[in-house]
Amino acid sequence: MEAVREQSFDLLIENVMLVNVFNDSVSPACIGISGERIQYIGEAKASFKAADTIDGGGLYALPGFIDSHMHLESSMLPPQAFACRALECGTTMVAADPHEICNVLGPKGVYALMEAASGTPLKVLMLAPSTVPSAPGFEGSGCAVGPQEAAEMLEHPGIFGLGEVMDFNGVADGEENILAVVRMARERGAMIDGHASVLTGERLQRFAAAGIDSDHTAANPEQLLERLALGCCVQIQECNLSAGMVQAMNELAVSNRVCLVTDDVPLDKLMHQGQLNHVVTRAIALGLEPVKAIRFATINAADRLRRYDTGAIAPGRLANIQLVRDLRAPKPELLVVEGKVILEGGRLNFTPRPCDLSALCEHPMLVKEVRKEDLFIPVETKPADTWAKVNIIKYNGSGHRTKKVLRNLPLCDSQLGRTVDITGLFKVAVFNRYGLDRHALALIDGMAELDGAIALTYGHDAHNLTVYGGDDGDMALAANTVRRMKGGMCAVQGGEVLARVPLPLGGLMSREPAEVLSGQVEAFLEACRKIGLKYANPITFLTLMPLAVSPEIKCTDLGLIDVVNKRMLPLIEECY
Amino acid sequence: MEAVREQSFDLLIENVMLVNVFNDSVSPACIGISGERIQYIGEAKASFKAADTIDGGGLYALPGFIDSHMHLESSMLPPQAFACRALECGTTMVAADPHEICNVLGPKGVYALMEAASGTPLKVLMLAPSTVPSAPGFEGSGCAVGPQEAAEMLEHPGIFGLGEVMDFNGVADGEENILAVVRMARERGAMIDGHASVLTGERLQRFAAAGIDSDHTAANPEQLLERLALGCCVQIQECNLSAGMVQAMNELAVSNRVCLVTDDVPLDKLMHQGQLNHVVTRAIALGLEPVKAIRFATINAADRLRRYDTGAIAPGRLANIQLVRDLRAPKPELLVVEGKVILEGGRLNFTPRPCDLSALCEHPMLVKEVRKEDLFIPVETKPADTWAKVNIIKYNGSGHRTKKVLRNLPLCDSQLGRTVDITGLFKVAVFNRYGLDRHALALIDGMAELDGAIALTYGHDAHNLTVYGGDDGDMALAANTVRRMKGGMCAVQGGEVLARVPLPLGGLMSREPAEVLSGQVEAFLEACRKIGLKYANPITFLTLMPLAVSPEIKCTDLGLIDVVNKRMLPLIEECY
Repeated sequence: MEAVREQSFDLLIENVMLVNVFNDSVSPACIGISGERIQYIGEAKASFKAADTIDGGGLYALPGFIDSHMHLESSMLPPQAFACRALECGTTMVAADPHEICNVLGPKGVYALMEAASGTPLKVLMLAPSTVPSAPGFEGSGCAVGPQEAAEMLEHPGIFGLGEVMDFNGVADGEENILAVVRMARERGAMIDGHASVLTGERLQRFAAAGIDSDHTAANPEQLLERLALGCCVQIQECNLSAGMVQAMNELAVSNRVCLVTDDVPLDKLMHQGQLNHVVTRAIALGLEPVKAIRFATINAADRLRRYDTGAIAPGRLANIQLVRDLRAPKPELLVVEGKVILEGGRLNFTPRPCDLSALCEHPMLVKEVRKEDLFIPVETKPADTWAKVNIIKYNGSGHRTKKVLRNLPLCDSQLGRTVDITGLFKVAVFNRYGLDRHALALIDGMAELDGAIALTYGHDAHNLTVYGGDDGDMALAANTVRRMKGGMCAVQGGEVLARVPLPLGGLMSREPAEVLSGQVEAFLEACRKIGLKYANPITFLTLMPLAVSPEIKCTDLGLIDVVNKRMLPLIEECY
Repeated sequence: MEAVREQSFDLLIENVMLVNVFNDSVSPACIGISGERIQYIGEAKASFKAADTIDGGGLYALPGFIDSHMHLESSMLPPQAFACRALECGTTMVAADPHEICNVLGPKGVYALMEAASGTPLKVLMLAPSTVPSAPGFEGSGCAVGPQEAAEMLEHPGIFGLGEVMDFNGVADGEENILAVVRMARERGAMIDGHASVLTGERLQRFAAAGIDSDHTAANPEQLLERLALGCCVQIQECNLSAGMVQAMNELAVSNRVCLVTDDVPLDKLMHQGQLNHVVTRAIALGLEPVKAIRFATINAADRLRRYDTGAIAPGRLANIQLVRDLRAPKPELLVVEGKVILEGGRLNFTPRPCDLSALCEHPMLVKEVRKEDLFIPVETKPADTWAKVNIIKYNGSGHRTKKVLRNLPLCDSQLGRTVDITGLFKVAVFNRYGLDRHALALIDGMAELDGAIALTYGHDAHNLTVYGGDDGDMALAANTVRRMKGGMCAVQGGEVLARVPLPLGGLMSREPAEVLSGQVEAFLEACRKIGLKYANPITFLTLMPLAVSPEIKCTDLGLIDVVNKRMLPLIEECY
């Protein structure tokens, strides 16, 4: 057999420890690249020629990370800035479910986000949101996705699958609205992303039987194993990592349907901890074998996303390669995307191509001027009544779960009439921003009183204008401040605006670079603390309060929602 | 959480041991099916209702086998009869590379084969042949596939990928003809099937770098591991199974890119041993863990073929299920395809839908009447010469490999002039059947003399008319008999036709049912033995002699081919 003629590469990366995700091995190698693809891995030969050569300095060479379930909007960064940050963290491809912007702007928002996320080396695979609004009938949103809207999006060449099916109960119960969307996607052979949440047993199987074959909510080893046994791709996010979970992941006989994902990463975590590399690092710290963690964040994700030319450092694959010093806490010192070095010494060396953000700016903010009186809770009583039984949202200060409690509150008089005494509680008000002149009020027992008010348009999933506060005047000012900014967040105290974060892109994302937005958000969080909101993750609390699919009780523009029993609740049950 | 409403299935298979290919487990279960899909696996519930119920009798429930690399033509059966036999063996899907018929009839032969293979529950995924003819310039065939022909086939909705790229040296050497075909398929995102043969090291990597990511020729653990490390899907066929190979397969850290395949299965093996189930059985007998063998023949193949709704018994997947008694030697007693029971008590219960075979019958057989003189080997000599140095094909009686030997043969006189004395040898002649009036002659040292002649139109890959024999008159009769049958095989002795097997479909396949064809082939093989051809696998020998890509020396209609050095050889080097 004759030898190969002299090999000539565009780029030769020498002297690396190559992590091979096809056999979980790590070994010394060089990597030959021509054009956008890898040509050779293995021992260096004297006969090799290369236009450019890089000494890998003995660093580990990993495939670029692939995040198979995430949302671009979560960081509130402009999408290109998010992309740059993801690349700095070694992520070269993401599958983005744009259901936040879709709730606000509909399919045209999805296309606008696609444009906004282009122009950097990050490959963004866009999904068609399936569950918009997340809780039909229980919230007002800017768009409703049915089979027709979802089909229209799937026809778009830039969209490759159906986004997370969040109405898991609807699917398990055989509800036609959501099943029609899933069936349409299945008939097209599209990948269908899931959100199975608490489903188990027969109900989980009905979810899988509909053709939904991934889930990013498995919270313990039992859920992991149950889902895998059904052929589900289980996508583990940081909040579901534990020593027990990684032990189960280490022990799997078959593990090609396990991925690591980020789902939602708020700005501060993104900037201080990282993107998918942080989930990898956390999993390894908890005991996951490093090569498995890397496999779960690369080739397994590529396979899940049906991308056959990435996810590994191997001949024929796209040259998406990161060089990292610490295999247990990867952060690229050098990053190659499709054959081009785009990050050196930890710094990006490209300028994003300008993109058109105008469509994202033209989002609805159809809220009338909010008056102090809009925040008043009127109570209809008989003259002898002194107490009211009130449905209260109880929040224990961490996570996203709320508890429904029925509390007896004393009645009191005010300038606007009889109301309930909310000592020890604070108010939340949600204003529809899509042109329906309506809002709802509720009370939160959040282990705090608020001296001031906080308003924001980032509120899962419908992103109406949500206002929290102890003082009706401050609440009105906060609401109106956000209205006038046409989206964003602000904090108010004593009639003064303490902090504001403009989010002009759909009311969800900033136009500012990461450093500027970080400063704005930090000032906003500082103001929130000053007002009295002292939770570990205040943005989680603030943005998830209107999410009517997240247990146990939430408030939308329609009112209090008993999520578990899928029904509306009155704020005041009775007076006596 | 509310319970699932009463589950109602079309078919409930109770009391089976379910083999779960997602976690390599076997456990007692029932399987609920509605329509064509599986709805539920697991514990039976009293609340279950079903239109039909089957007691699985404690048998193992396996997914239908999926053969990810095979050729429909190999058995010589009409495609529907092959499909029935495959189903009897538990195979429910095959990826068929129709390069045999494509050599004869071109793309229209591929479409005709697709039609001929339809009408049974076997799912046939058809590939577009990439390497037709297999050795351009060294054989005459009925069609040449270039990028344009391959692209035309890939456009056909029934064709889903590029068939095995057999010109591995061409790819490794950067030859533009074959690279253009591969590039075209890669640009379309098509799956590309490979045949890497002896390639290793840099040359194998160049093959992989072209985008070819499977191989069914790995013959030992080293080749298995080298290919897997490059991300290649390694498809193991029976002839490459060994104790060492299965040990390596058992020990893989990552094994989702390993499949079991059949490639070519001749009729006798197909009828007596089975189809893919036989490969599974052999692998297990050699030590492969049974659940792994089954995984390699089901979900791994489905993943390779990018079929996301089959390959496993799990909710949402197509109900392709076989019930087998012996996990170590699976043969279905019951087979369900897409929710329908199509085999019970080991017997098929359906009638294939009639299909149109006419296009397959209209194949070229453009060979003129063969005369005895056409088989004569003339020798140009100087008067004093008494010897000739002759290039001989040496065959040791097993496998497909031949050796090139240079032999000194005495010269002798005959009615037609001077020739060589072929005592101890026999002749092979290959007649172009595509309208070029040419043929070539060669000599075989096959440890036998032939008393009579054998002719056939099944000759890899161009399927010209090939004739073997010791007697020129018998050879002419055999050739003309096959000519008049318009394709097939026949054996002749002493001027009498001993046996004939008509293969009217492209000259490759019969129109007869399996029992009839089996009888014909057995009679033919018996006649071959009588003539003196006593190899273990005579059909392998007879059909592979013209294959100019199989080492080391072969004979096509153009003459002797030195396969290793890719050049023509003269039959007679010199006389002296």
